[in-house]
Amino acid sequence: MFLKNCWYVAAWSHEVECEKIFARKLLNEDVILYRRQDGTPAAMVNRCPHRLAPLSLGRIEDDCVRCMYHGLLFNSDGDCVEVPQQDRIPPNLTVKTFPLVERDKLIWIWMGDPALADESSVPDAHWLDSPDWAYAPGYIKYDNANFMLIVDNLLDFSHLGYVHETTIGGKGNSGLIKPKVERFDWGVRITRQYTDDDIPPFIRGIAKFEGKTDRWQIYDWHVAGNILSMDSGNAPAGTGAFDGEASPLTLRFHSYQALTPESETSTHYFWAQTHDFEIDNPQMSQAIADQVRNAFGEDREIIEAQQVVLKNFPDAKMNPIGADAALNQVRWLLNKKLEAERSLTQESSNG
Amino acid sequence: MFLKNCWYVAAWSHEVECEKIFARKLLNEDVILYRRQDGTPAAMVNRCPHRLAPLSLGRIEDDCVRCMYHGLLFNSDGDCVEVPQQDRIPPNLTVKTFPLVERDKLIWIWMGDPALADESSVPDAHWLDSPDWAYAPGYIKYDNANFMLIVDNLLDFSHLGYVHETTIGGKGNSGLIKPKVERFDWGVRITRQYTDDDIPPFIRGIAKFEGKTDRWQIYDWHVAGNILSMDSGNAPAGTGAFDGEASPLTLRFHSYQALTPESETSTHYFWAQTHDFEIDNPQMSQAIADQVRNAFGEDREIIEAQQVVLKNFPDAKMNPIGADAALNQVRWLLNKKLEAERSLTQESSNG
Amino acid sequence: MFLKNCWYVAAWSHEVECEKIFARKLLNEDVILYRRQDGTPAAMVNRCPHRLAPLSLGRIEDDCVRCMYHGLLFNSDGDCVEVPQQDRIPPNLTVKTFPLVERDKLIWIWMGDPALADESSVPDAHWLDSPDWAYAPGYIKYDNANFMLIVDNLLDFSHLGYVHETTIGGKGNSGLIKPKVERFDWGVRITRQYTDDDIPPFIRGIAKFEGKTDRWQIYDWHVAGNILSMDSGNAPAGTGAFDGEASPLTLRFHSYQALTPESETSTHYFWAQTHDFEIDNPQMSQAIADQVRNAFGEDREIIEAQQVVLKNFPDAKMNPIGADAALNQVRWLLNKKLEAERSLTQESSNG
Repeated sequence: MFLKNCWYVAAWSHEVECEKIFARKLLNEDVILYRRQDGTPAAMVNRCPHRLAPLSLGRIEDDCVRCMYHGLLFNSDGDCVEVPQQDRIPPNLTVKTFPLVERDKLIWIWMGDPALADESSVPDAHWLDSPDWAYAPGYIKYDNANFMLIVDNLLDFSHLGYVHETTIGGKGNSGLIKPKVERFDWGVRITRQYTDDDIPPFIRGIAKFEGKTDRWQIYDWHVAGNILSMDSGNAPAGTGAFDGEASPLTLRFHSYQALTPESETSTHYFWAQTHDFEIDNPQMSQAIADQVRNAFGEDREIIEAQQVVLKNFPDAKMNPIGADAALNQVRWLLNKKLEAERSLTQESSNG
Repeated sequence: MFLKNCWYVAAWSHEVECEKIFARKLLNEDVILYRRQDGTPAAMVNRCPHRLAPLSLGRIEDDCVRCMYHGLLFNSDGDCVEVPQQDRIPPNLTVKTFPLVERDKLIWIWMGDPALADESSVPDAHWLDSPDWAYAPGYIKYDNANFMLIVDNLLDFSHLGYVHETTIGGKGNSGLIKPKVERFDWGVRITRQYTDDDIPPFIRGIAKFEGKTDRWQIYDWHVAGNILSMDSGNAPAGTGAFDGEASPLTLRFHSYQALTPESETSTHYFWAQTHDFEIDNPQMSQAIADQVRNAFGEDREIIEAQQVVLKNFPDAKMNPIGADAALNQVRWLLNKKLEAERSLTQESSNG
Repeated sequence: MFLKNCWYVAAWSHEVECEKIFARKLLNEDVILYRRQDGTPAAMVNRCPHRLAPLSLGRIEDDCVRCMYHGLLFNSDGDCVEVPQQDRIPPNLTVKTFPLVERDKLIWIWMGDPALADESSVPDAHWLDSPDWAYAPGYIKYDNANFMLIVDNLLDFSHLGYVHETTIGGKGNSGLIKPKVERFDWGVRITRQYTDDDIPPFIRGIAKFEGKTDRWQIYDWHVAGNILSMDSGNAPAGTGAFDGEASPLTLRFHSYQALTPESETSTHYFWAQTHDFEIDNPQMSQAIADQVRNAFGEDREIIEAQQVVLKNFPDAKMNPIGADAALNQVRWLLNKKLEAERSLTQESSNG
C-alpha cells in the first residue's frame, strides 16, 4: 500500500535522455518517460490502449510516441493523434499521463489524483542544483525489499555498530548518544550533537583542522515521497558551531535520499551525499559517493534477507525495542496519511 | 481455453524418429509420441498410471513403451501388458491415447473426444508433400504467448510497416491496400491484389522478369487447428494473372502455418514457406525460410512483450481499431465454436 | 504434512563447526545450529524476534548468538540477554529453540512439542560410531521431491532392474525373490535370503572367497524420522550364514539412511554405507560410497521427474501393483501416526 497523492522521484534528470524512451515501474504501474522537443519531460502509462503492446518499444516522433506494433501515435497529453489507415480516431484511445515537475536535477512524478498535484508541494532539494554543493548522483535498485524496510533502516541508528561495524559504523554502539526526536506534520526530525568529540576516521583524512570536533546531524524524514534530507557537519571544537557560528574550517554535508516504491517488494533508491568543500574536485565527490554506496550495500544485504523471512514466514511478528522510537513514529504518521487518502477516495467516489 | 475437438499439428514427421520417445506438451497435456515397428506414430499421455513417472524416460520395446521406474509395459492402445513379478494385470492400469493422422509430413493429433475424430477433417496441407513445391520446414516455440496473440498478429497486416519496418514490411502503411475479407464457416479469407505494382525487394533478386508486377495474396485462416494457408504470387504485369492466366515467369508461394497451444501462455508454431520455383535448390528454400524466421522473430519480440503486459495488468482493456476487422471476426468465430463445444460436453454429461 | 513428535537427523556432526552458524531448513522451519563453547550443539529458529532479520547472518559470542542487524544477543535457551542502549529487556524477545541430541556422529533434532522429547527414543545408529564399522558419510539434497516419494523408492525393490539396470540392479527382475514383509509398531522389516546364489558383480571384486554365496538383506524401515537401517551380507555358500554361523570370510554391510523433509517438495538425505571389512582402508569406504551415490543419482532423476508430474497434474491418480506392498504398509502406518499426533494436538489445545 502506497501513499499516492504526493510527489515521488521518478528519475534523475540525466536518466531521461532526448529521443529515447525511458521505462520504469513506479508504485506498481509501468511508466514511460521521455522529453518533448523543448526538453520538458512527459510521462505516461507504458501500454498502448489498442492491444496493450508496451510503448517502451515505441518511437519518439516530435513530441509524440508511436506504438511500434500497429503504428498508433500519441501526443504527450496521452491522446491518440493518428491511427494508420483510418480517418476517425476513437475517443477511448487514450493513454493515462502523469504530472511531472523537473527541478533540482530530479524528475518528480505525481501518481495519484492529478487534480491534487500541486507544484508548490514538490520537496525542497536545492542542494542538488546549487553552486555551493557538489556530489556524484547515486541510484540503487532494491529488487527484494518493501520500501518500509528501507525506511526503518534509515530511521534507525542502532544498526550502525553492527551492519556497518567495519565501515562507517564503528564497533558497537558505545559512542552513540540518544538523539532528540521531534514529530511534525510532515515527518520527524532527529537531532544529534557531539561536543568536543573525536574526529571520525573518514573526516580525519579530509579536515583541515586537528584535535577535537563539534559535530552534528539534523535528520529530516518526510513521509510524503519518502524523503531524507540530512544536514551534518564537523567544526573545530569550541568554535561555536552549535551557537550559529561557522568556522571557515567547518566541513558540511547535506545528504538527500528518496525512496520510490517499484512494487510491494522492490524499491528505487535515489541518493546524493552533497558536500560544501572541495566542490570543484569530482574525485572527492566520487570518493564520498563510493563510501556511501558501499555502506548502502551492507544495508541491502540485511534488508533483503529480512524481506525473504517476511515472505516465507508471513505470520512472524516483529517486537519493538527502544531504538525503534523514530521509525514507529514514522509508521504511525504514514498510516495516518494513508487513512486520510482512503477517506478522500471514498468521499469522491460517494460524492 | 482451447478448442479440443479438432486436429492440431503435434509435430513435423521428422521430429518423431524410430526407437525414440518424443515428448511434447500440447493443450496443457503432456504427451509422448513414438513410432510402431511399421513406422506408424502413436501418442499417449506422458504418465505411468502406476506411480505417475513420466513415460518419456521410458523405453520402446517393439510397439510398446516400458516405464523405466518399475518396468510396467504398455502397448500403443495404452493397455498395460506386463507388470513385473505379477500375473494379473489390474484393468485400471491404462494410459490415455490420442488419435493421430500422419499426412503431408505432419503428425496431426486429436486431443478432444476420440469418438469424434474424423480423418476426413484433417486440414489440407498437400503443398508440404508435393513434387511441385519445395521448402525448409520451420518450428518456433513461443515460451510466453497465448496462441491468440499470435493469431491476432497473423490476421493483421497493419503491423507490417512497424514491426517489420526494416525487413519485410517497408516504411509505414502507405502502400497497403484494403483487403477483401470474407467470412466462412471454417474461418476467414483475406484477399489482396496489387495491379501493376513495383516488384517487392525480395522478389526482385529472384524474378526472371523486370518492370512492374501483378501480385496477390489469398489468405485463408482456419479456426479449427489455427491453420494459415496462404497463396501468394508475382506475375509480370499485364500477363493476366488475375484472369486465370499464368505466365511461365510467375513466382508463387504457398505459406502453411499452424499454431498449437502448449499451455495458456505458450505456443508451438509450425510453418513452411513453400515455393514453386527453383524447387531443386535447397539453398533457395533455406534462404526463404531464413527470411521468414527473421520476420517471425520481430513478431515474437512484440507479442511476448504484449503477453507480459497482459500478465501484469490483467484488468487492462484492449480497444479496437479498423485494422482489427479480420481478427475480430476470427475471435468471434472461435468463441462460437468454443460455445458449441461446451454445449456438446454438457449434453453428453447430462445424456 | 510431517510427523513432528519424533527425532529427525538435522545434520552430520561434522557439518556444524565451532564458531560458525550453520543454517538449514527443516520441516518448513528455518533453523540455525551452532556449538556452545563446550562443544554441545544448540538449535533455534533463524529469525530475530525484533525485526525478523535472519540470525544466520549473526555472530557467535561465547554460547550466545548476536543478531547483526541491531545487535540483540540471545543465549542458547533462546532468551534475549542484551538489547543495545537499553536496560530492560522485553520478555517477549525470545527465539524458539529445539531439543537436540548428538550421538553416533549425527545431530538429532526434535521439531515437535519439546515436552515430549525423550532422548531414549533417539534411533540406534551405533554403526556410525563404532570401531567395527567404516564408512564415508553421504548427504544428498533433493530440491524437488516430497520425502514420501523417496520413501516409496526405498521400500520398493521392483525398480532395481529398471532404474539401476546398468549399475547395481541388473537386467530386469528375473532374479528377484519375493521378500518376507513384517509389520511392527515402529515400521516394517523386509527380509530376503538368497541361498547358493551367484556372487553379485560388486562383491566379486572384494570377496576373499570364490564359488557361490549365501547372501541376505534385513531391511528395517522406521516410520518415525524416516530411518532405513539395513543389515546385508555375503557368506561363502553352505557355511551356515542363515543358521547363526559366521564364516570369517563373510562380508557385511550396514546401510544407514535418514530422510528429513526440508519442505513439502524438498528433502535432506543423510546416508552411510558402513562395512565391516577393510575398515582401515578409506579408499574402500570412498569407493563404496561413490557407488551408492551413483545409484542414488539414478533414483533422484526418476523421483524428481515424478514430482514434476505431481506438481503439474495434481489430480492424476496413482494405481497400486503387487510390488507396492511394503510402501503401502508404511504409508498406512505413517497416516496412523499422523492421525494420533493430530488428536494429541487437539486434546492439548482443548484441555
